[in-house]
Amino acid sequence: MEIYADNGATTRLSRTAYDAMLPFFGADFGNPSSIHSFGVKASEALSGARRTIAGCLGAGEDEIYFTSGGSESITQAIMSAAEYGTGLGKRHIVTSPIEHHAVLNTLERLKKQGFEITKLPVGTRGIVDPESVRNALRDDTALVSVMFANNEIGTVQPVREIGRICAEHGVLFHTDAVQAAGHIEIDLEDLRADYLSASAHKFHGPKGAGILFARRNTPLTEIIFGGPQERGARAGTENVPAVVGCAAALREACSNMEKNVRAVTALREKLIDGLLDIPGAVLNGDRQKRLPGNANVSFPGISGESLAILLDLKGIKVSTGSACNSVSTEPSYVLTAIGRSVDEALGSLRITLDETNTDEDADQIIRAVREAVIKLR
Amino acid sequence: MEIYADNGATTRLSRTAYDAMLPFFGADFGNPSSIHSFGVKASEALSGARRTIAGCLGAGEDEIYFTSGGSESITQAIMSAAEYGTGLGKRHIVTSPIEHHAVLNTLERLKKQGFEITKLPVGTRGIVDPESVRNALRDDTALVSVMFANNEIGTVQPVREIGRICAEHGVLFHTDAVQAAGHIEIDLEDLRADYLSASAHKFHGPKGAGILFARRNTPLTEIIFGGPQERGARAGTENVPAVVGCAAALREACSNMEKNVRAVTALREKLIDGLLDIPGAVLNGDRQKRLPGNANVSFPGISGESLAILLDLKGIKVSTGSACNSVSTEPSYVLTAIGRSVDEALGSLRITLDETNTDEDADQIIRAVREAVIKLR
Repeated sequence: MEIYADNGATTRLSRTAYDAMLPFFGADFGNPSSIHSFGVKASEALSGARRTIAGCLGAGEDEIYFTSGGSESITQAIMSAAEYGTGLGKRHIVTSPIEHHAVLNTLERLKKQGFEITKLPVGTRGIVDPESVRNALRDDTALVSVMFANNEIGTVQPVREIGRICAEHGVLFHTDAVQAAGHIEIDLEDLRADYLSASAHKFHGPKGAGILFARRNTPLTEIIFGGPQERGARAGTENVPAVVGCAAALREACSNMEKNVRAVTALREKLIDGLLDIPGAVLNGDRQKRLPGNANVSFPGISGESLAILLDLKGIKVSTGSACNSVSTEPSYVLTAIGRSVDEALGSLRITLDETNTDEDADQIIRAVREAVIKLR
Repeated sequence: MEIYADNGATTRLSRTAYDAMLPFFGADFGNPSSIHSFGVKASEALSGARRTIAGCLGAGEDEIYFTSGGSESITQAIMSAAEYGTGLGKRHIVTSPIEHHAVLNTLERLKKQGFEITKLPVGTRGIVDPESVRNALRDDTALVSVMFANNEIGTVQPVREIGRICAEHGVLFHTDAVQAAGHIEIDLEDLRADYLSASAHKFHGPKGAGILFARRNTPLTEIIFGGPQERGARAGTENVPAVVGCAAALREACSNMEKNVRAVTALREKLIDGLLDIPGAVLNGDRQKRLPGNANVSFPGISGESLAILLDLKGIKVSTGSACNSVSTEPSYVLTAIGRSVDEALGSLRITLDETNTDEDADQIIRAVREAVIKLR
């Protein structure tokens, strides 16, 4: 029996999403831009998906853009704000040190172009203080980019408060919701974000489908040039099956959210309790303000990588941190930002559950981690 | 019975590609960056796909990068050359006026950044003279971008000769092979291109998978920032099912290429003969040097759009030109570039066949076009 508990890296495609996609790999393969009936059918599917996603997020249909994934959405949101800022002589961006590389590396690029980047402290709990955002704002601040929830330690940021502060000061606000979308509530009628990024494969949708929310009248510039798809904001033939699967998965996730949040949170609590019973174990990130499925625990003195490999041999799939950084042997920059020592950071294990994981899974994971820790000590 | 003859817009996913993709929508859903066995399996699938595609194109595995589609590949190739050129003080690019919008709009963007763009004439046959490329090269030329085959009139460009001229002069050469890949032979051991772009859904692969060939040691910069995927050249979780489907489709297309080229060319010839029998009809693009499946014929005085709609009602799916421009009522810039009058350009019909089309299809199309033309006159 294999236990998949690496849902922060990617999730299993849901049956609902799969079923929704299949016709578009078959008879309904048209290009949405074609004027004939095959094109019309594809185009209608695209509109339907956009409507569904807008509905789930509390957005307008005309505020939803489809991209190839989270990194593309994030790059485009930040680049759009930066280009707009440049036009106004504003070249300062506020962010946190625990953002995903898609944010940090886009900002690195902008730094080379003369932007100044302020990274706010996140404390030992891994949470940005909204007041620190207010204090960091300057006359030349073009953008604030703070993630909705962290991909390694699962901490949920006070994006509602940050959004309000940005709105008060007339500063654009982007939030990377790649880990949050489909897992915790997002309501863009209430959340004053100008941009929000999400990725289908993180909520049981397919890979290759990203969502970019850009509020009406918010600057949006292309990063992929060509045809007039996505109302001129993103060129290239639309990935119809992926977009349809994305919408089906998000609708399913949102319909079951209350139930899932309750069940997954309870399971995570059980898991964290069990893991913290192992001598030396420390929890990374705030215990309460975290994603329902995220448990990130360090075992100082032990290699998290070795732990993950031993667990893999027992059929348990977990990670040491962000999948995107898995090739690196550097300590996680997220963990060092919350004050973890190198030793603690290198001994971390990220276990990300979803609603298909069971009580028995949690028991098995706890038992296996305990055995592996003893073995490695 | 419906006849699909709009393969220039998109193609039906092949059974082989579909079968190759399915496991990755099921049990093999891992993230290639994950260190556990699910990740390893996904990562191996990715490597296998890269090897297959490299083999089909005569490239090295380390020269193949996966993107989300043709427009992204094209944008990245051109932007990479432009950034490299900027570093050397070279801000001149040579191209043709009949390139796809992905090329032309990327160049428009560069023009705003101070680049100078030379568009070579293509004559009435729609073909770039290699000598005109030689004559256009300057000391500050950063890039030549000439398409392999045109998406509207199907003309195949002398890319082999152009590549040699560019190589002689040490100028980077990109070719947009979106319409060519999988349809006519591409051998990158012989073709001296530095960049080549292709898109899976144009050769019976899935939407959402693009190929970017960048020759070893050729400058390549990211346009989507984030994780270290694609050896640092393209961030974002790889779209494993789409990439696997892309490879399966390209292998299938390349294995059957000789046979397909012969059959589809014969069918096209029959179709063109039949269409040119209709009074007033004129062929757009060179008769010989064109993609096997492309027939583009103008009926001056008649609306191509109305023609396409009438054919649609009879179950025949064709287009008036590029699907990407289908929302536009402007005459095709490709047709005006080859000297067609506005009247001729607005009366054009693009019929793009593939190996699944039959003799009977060609007969039916000819009959239906003839009837529709009479009706509209």
